[in-house]
Amino acid sequence: MVKKVVIVGGGIAGIYVLRNLLARREEIEEGLDLTLLKRERSGWVSTCGLPFALRGWYEIKRTEINEPKFFLDQGVDFRTETEVTKLDLEARTVKIADGEELAYDYLVIATGREPSVPEAVANTELEGISTFNNEDDARKIEAAMEGATNAFVRGRGIIGLQAAVAFATKGLNTTVLGGPPSLLPGSLDPDMGDIVKKWLEEKHGIRFILARKEITGVKGENGRVKSVVIGDGEEIPADVVVIARGMRPNVGLAVDAGIATGDSGGIVTDGAMHVRRGRGYLRDVFALGDCTEVIDGITYRPRLSQLASTVVVQSKVVADNIISDIKGQPALYSISVPCLSPTVAEIGGLIVGSVGVTGEAATRAGIKTLSGTATKLVKARYFPGAKPLTMKLLFDAYSHKLIGAQMVGESTVAERVNELQMAIRAGMTAEEIRNTERCYDPSLSLLIDVTIDATEKAMGITPVY
Amino acid sequence: MVKKVVIVGGGIAGIYVLRNLLARREEIEEGLDLTLLKRERSGWVSTCGLPFALRGWYEIKRTEINEPKFFLDQGVDFRTETEVTKLDLEARTVKIADGEELAYDYLVIATGREPSVPEAVANTELEGISTFNNEDDARKIEAAMEGATNAFVRGRGIIGLQAAVAFATKGLNTTVLGGPPSLLPGSLDPDMGDIVKKWLEEKHGIRFILARKEITGVKGENGRVKSVVIGDGEEIPADVVVIARGMRPNVGLAVDAGIATGDSGGIVTDGAMHVRRGRGYLRDVFALGDCTEVIDGITYRPRLSQLASTVVVQSKVVADNIISDIKGQPALYSISVPCLSPTVAEIGGLIVGSVGVTGEAATRAGIKTLSGTATKLVKARYFPGAKPLTMKLLFDAYSHKLIGAQMVGESTVAERVNELQMAIRAGMTAEEIRNTERCYDPSLSLLIDVTIDATEKAMGITPVY
Repeated sequence: MVKKVVIVGGGIAGIYVLRNLLARREEIEEGLDLTLLKRERSGWVSTCGLPFALRGWYEIKRTEINEPKFFLDQGVDFRTETEVTKLDLEARTVKIADGEELAYDYLVIATGREPSVPEAVANTELEGISTFNNEDDARKIEAAMEGATNAFVRGRGIIGLQAAVAFATKGLNTTVLGGPPSLLPGSLDPDMGDIVKKWLEEKHGIRFILARKEITGVKGENGRVKSVVIGDGEEIPADVVVIARGMRPNVGLAVDAGIATGDSGGIVTDGAMHVRRGRGYLRDVFALGDCTEVIDGITYRPRLSQLASTVVVQSKVVADNIISDIKGQPALYSISVPCLSPTVAEIGGLIVGSVGVTGEAATRAGIKTLSGTATKLVKARYFPGAKPLTMKLLFDAYSHKLIGAQMVGESTVAERVNELQMAIRAGMTAEEIRNTERCYDPSLSLLIDVTIDATEKAMGITPVY
Repeated sequence: MVKKVVIVGGGIAGIYVLRNLLARREEIEEGLDLTLLKRERSGWVSTCGLPFALRGWYEIKRTEINEPKFFLDQGVDFRTETEVTKLDLEARTVKIADGEELAYDYLVIATGREPSVPEAVANTELEGISTFNNEDDARKIEAAMEGATNAFVRGRGIIGLQAAVAFATKGLNTTVLGGPPSLLPGSLDPDMGDIVKKWLEEKHGIRFILARKEITGVKGENGRVKSVVIGDGEEIPADVVVIARGMRPNVGLAVDAGIATGDSGGIVTDGAMHVRRGRGYLRDVFALGDCTEVIDGITYRPRLSQLASTVVVQSKVVADNIISDIKGQPALYSISVPCLSPTVAEIGGLIVGSVGVTGEAATRAGIKTLSGTATKLVKARYFPGAKPLTMKLLFDAYSHKLIGAQMVGESTVAERVNELQMAIRAGMTAEEIRNTERCYDPSLSLLIDVTIDATEKAMGITPVY
């Protein structure tokens, strides 16, 4: 009999499970019936591309890689603007807002996340205030930017800063409110985060308020926001307000169905992405993406990851396990790996990267570290593109193994994050990294790279420049 | 008593040993007396930067990073234009051309390599013909380019191709003669080498003759070369001729002193870079760089590496061992690693990279491989710099471990070589690489990178694009 897979959620997580299953559909003789249910109107959207659209690099519609028709034409029951109201794991059905119940053989929960909106904003009817979670939000923000003079962003993570850069680029006076002491605390220690802050202040004129303050009020005119009030009364002019803080796993449906969540707030899964219910894991229910928690690759504690890149791996684990189960083959756990959250973001011309734990996260986990920071050009100074890069490396003080890397520079950051992730996964020690040959062409690299300098500094050796 | 170190050779190898020893000199209470003997007139030259100087990116003199004075001022007995005539390992002296004998406590052999010059060229007195091994050669070539119309390059390795690009950039009709079947055979399999050939033909108008032919004659006018004759009579116009083939280890002095060389022609060393003589290794004589052979990191067979990057690691091994020995500490073997020769080269706007074994080298060693090749943009197509990259990955068919990577593209190649070298050293399998998360920002990378596509192709899986 035809097997039915129902995917709840049409962000990157749901779409990538769908795409992986489509690619392997022909392996299943009895056929594979695929349904995807999503709230938004669109098909497959590159949400990570939205901040660049606001910056004017291209139109928002360009981020829609495939319209729903693309999936409908392949025989997928692809339903947009569809609200799921209940997951019934006993009846093995999914109920949607109009009352219809869809039966499933395999259920995939990819319900994503939602920002934590301050109370003062949640209850306003003023226009110009938006979260920044999907393309519908992007369109609202774009509309609010029209004729605006002042912008306000609540949140100092990647999305908040990318939104701020978009506003500043478009000439708006831009203020960012975030917690102390520094930017991007999930990826960068304060010393590194301060480099980003200085760049955004100097190159883009963005103003930062990093303090334990919250939005306590909003004021408007003709139904549009004109200012926000923070803390005990400071008023900041704002014609457009973006709320991009505290991205919480969207787990309501799962919790109602009795599925376990962890301390991080995310759905608990095993290595095959099966969800947990009571004492067992369900062979036919999977969860992935921003609504789930991952196992940290350094501390082995559960935490959130919420990166599109994490989803790409998880979607293969889900699809491979569904196919394997249909074929009567064993579950695949080994294809999943503890998460190192390799992160990269272009923020107003500066590229920020990190992988593994930060110094702060290591301290929280009780890990003693050796750390080294170095700044160096990425290639010989007489070649075009010879820009500086600052790298901070963290080694476990006991084993000398690399456990974290942070970078700020204008190029080569993404690739270095991938390289250092390999080094962390491989358990490379400072001594080994120091004596690892690196490829050299003076127009592309230095004979002694910043990685070596940072490593030697962590080892207490003075680098030969 | 002050310990005396004599370094023979002033290329990157000799200079980097010197620089590492200078950096650690203060650790030795009794003092360290440093001598470097070199043939050329210059101090520390970035020889890898010379081809770009010929292309007009900067003056040749810019490649001299430090003049001899820089080292003399630090108390180094830095002798240029000095020919060493004998190494006496019994007397522990080095004899130079004027008859002087310098005593040493530690001897470092860094005598480099020399191209194999065809007989027909070796004996000519015509001007305009040169090897391309150092800055003196570069000056000769630059002089010959003045007013020239036609250029001829013997050699299809990195140096030969970079010279050809320099000539073509300067408007010379350029012909390259090399062996069959394809370019850069040490780094690329024929399918990948052909991409480079096509690029150089189409973008730079370079003509290639890849055949088992040798230069059999040269013709001249007024003491200057006007053409070369190849094989049994084809005459090719040439006002400038560069010989850049068959780089042989320069081991005459070492062999005369009884030091062992291997099948590759290079000096044999152990992991601490001690040379072998008779049945033993000498604690006080080291060799490194282009004159030595390395242990291959995949086959564990000896071979040549001859990269500046190899020298950087070897120079630390030599310096650390000298310091360790002076201090009465044990020799350091573990800091040396089998060589994977991570290679990158910019060749006329195209960047070529490789690490580990090629398919050809694997076949020669009897290794059965799984290979996958994929071409993809390095980032989303609507971002500036979204250029294609072709990657070929080779996995050991038995263990599925990555053993080689080859790349051709316009960006991110150097960094990817470093990443994949980490993966090879770590013993990562195709399955592990496939399911390794990679950092993502659409302006910098794709959600599913070409590395994943190439890996999945090698595994027989159709990539989800």
